[in-house]
Amino acid sequence: MTITSNQNPRFRWVRSLIKQTKQRRQDASFVVEGVRLVEEALAAGWQPLLVLYSSQLSKRGQKSLRTISSAGCETIAISPTLMASLSDTETSQGIVAVFPITTFPLPADPTFLLIADALRDPGNLGTLLRTGLAAGVQGVLLTPGSTDAWSPKVLRAGMGAHFRLPIHVLGWDEIEQLAKSQTDPPLRLYLAKSRGGQPAWQADLRSPLALIVGNEAAGAGSEARRRADTALSIPMPGGSESLNAAIAAAILLFEVVRQRSQ
Amino acid sequence: MTITSNQNPRFRWVRSLIKQTKQRRQDASFVVEGVRLVEEALAAGWQPLLVLYSSQLSKRGQKSLRTISSAGCETIAISPTLMASLSDTETSQGIVAVFPITTFPLPADPTFLLIADALRDPGNLGTLLRTGLAAGVQGVLLTPGSTDAWSPKVLRAGMGAHFRLPIHVLGWDEIEQLAKSQTDPPLRLYLAKSRGGQPAWQADLRSPLALIVGNEAAGAGSEARRRADTALSIPMPGGSESLNAAIAAAILLFEVVRQRSQ
Repeated sequence: MTITSNQNPRFRWVRSLIKQTKQRRQDASFVVEGVRLVEEALAAGWQPLLVLYSSQLSKRGQKSLRTISSAGCETIAISPTLMASLSDTETSQGIVAVFPITTFPLPADPTFLLIADALRDPGNLGTLLRTGLAAGVQGVLLTPGSTDAWSPKVLRAGMGAHFRLPIHVLGWDEIEQLAKSQTDPPLRLYLAKSRGGQPAWQADLRSPLALIVGNEAAGAGSEARRRADTALSIPMPGGSESLNAAIAAAILLFEVVRQRSQ
Repeated sequence: MTITSNQNPRFRWVRSLIKQTKQRRQDASFVVEGVRLVEEALAAGWQPLLVLYSSQLSKRGQKSLRTISSAGCETIAISPTLMASLSDTETSQGIVAVFPITTFPLPADPTFLLIADALRDPGNLGTLLRTGLAAGVQGVLLTPGSTDAWSPKVLRAGMGAHFRLPIHVLGWDEIEQLAKSQTDPPLRLYLAKSRGGQPAWQADLRSPLALIVGNEAAGAGSEARRRADTALSIPMPGGSESLNAAIAAAILLFEVVRQRSQ
């Protein structure tokens, strides 16, 4: 039986999880859209709570659907019209899956963390998660005021990073406590700053560190500036004003990778 | 007098320059939207052909408008409704300016170029231009099939890089000729590749080079792969599949900056 009514309770639940941060928080659940992201989730060992699919699902997508269904998860067919109304992308791929938000623990003595300080742009946060995973960070900390990491836009830009990275929302007191509890060697907090910090190539980034990246327009907040041990800047010979926040973070994260590979 | 009709020829011309690549090519003109981008253009010495403004223009924007007007450029007031219909951003800032497309020449013997190979995503291309300017590249070459560099989305993401960077559309034969005409020292073509290339930290990037960056989904085209001297990859300890095209380009461009600053 295919659901065609937008009053169906399951459909309404999924829609509210897609649209509302509040609903995601309340149910500790989020929605993954599209064949590739669902595959990424399954490959990382995540198990959905509920899957909605429609007739436009590709052969490749049907394979994931069978895997999910045979694992005992509820799967429900909905009409293409309902499916289209769920997505804010132009073309729906005919599958959405609800997962419980799972927060992987941080390692006991982390050596490489990323702190996103009140990042508001979902695309930037998603790109940051994707880049952080590629660089091998052991966790991403989001300070209060950040855009919700489990929204569809962040998930899309994250390209599956959510299923592999510890992502924690932490206040600055907790972050400072985490940094200070680690003494041998200590975890240093480096703040990415568009100008005036220590040139990144001259800093020694081989010791344990957390890189703090701020909001694009406003830069890092006053708390971030106060708690950071060192400000770090990227020398810009072209003399332009600044780099996009996710770009600047990527350059610094991979400078850490480079130094540690020497 | 304030124009309120969407049949006004000046208004229609500006709208077609905003919406149509073909119109921009035909008239070799493009449209800059918003106070900050107009300021960037003026600061770089660009002179508009025509400016439309509306009553929601801020004090700061009015200052630019007076500068433009006193330089003898035509400025026309239009209604806020017409202004809103021009822009695809949510809030119009009440100013749009038409400029002639000006192509700065490339230096005679370039040492640092960026080649965007058939990049389709406007946001990615704009970010690439912004990042290239910050890294000090002397020009950006776009191969045929690239998204138009002078569209509103590319201009927005470029954050003013268009007003300072030589941006040339060149075929691969011309690019190869440009590279081969330079022999002492030669200009090497490096291709950014998501895996399998020489690790970027191990390559010597101090000699003259052009970095080729491909399309995100498809990677660089067959021509790019054929013409490149060397493939270059970013070591990714986190084992994720790939980086966003603009992110990968930024990491490699600033690795060049780093090596040359040593």
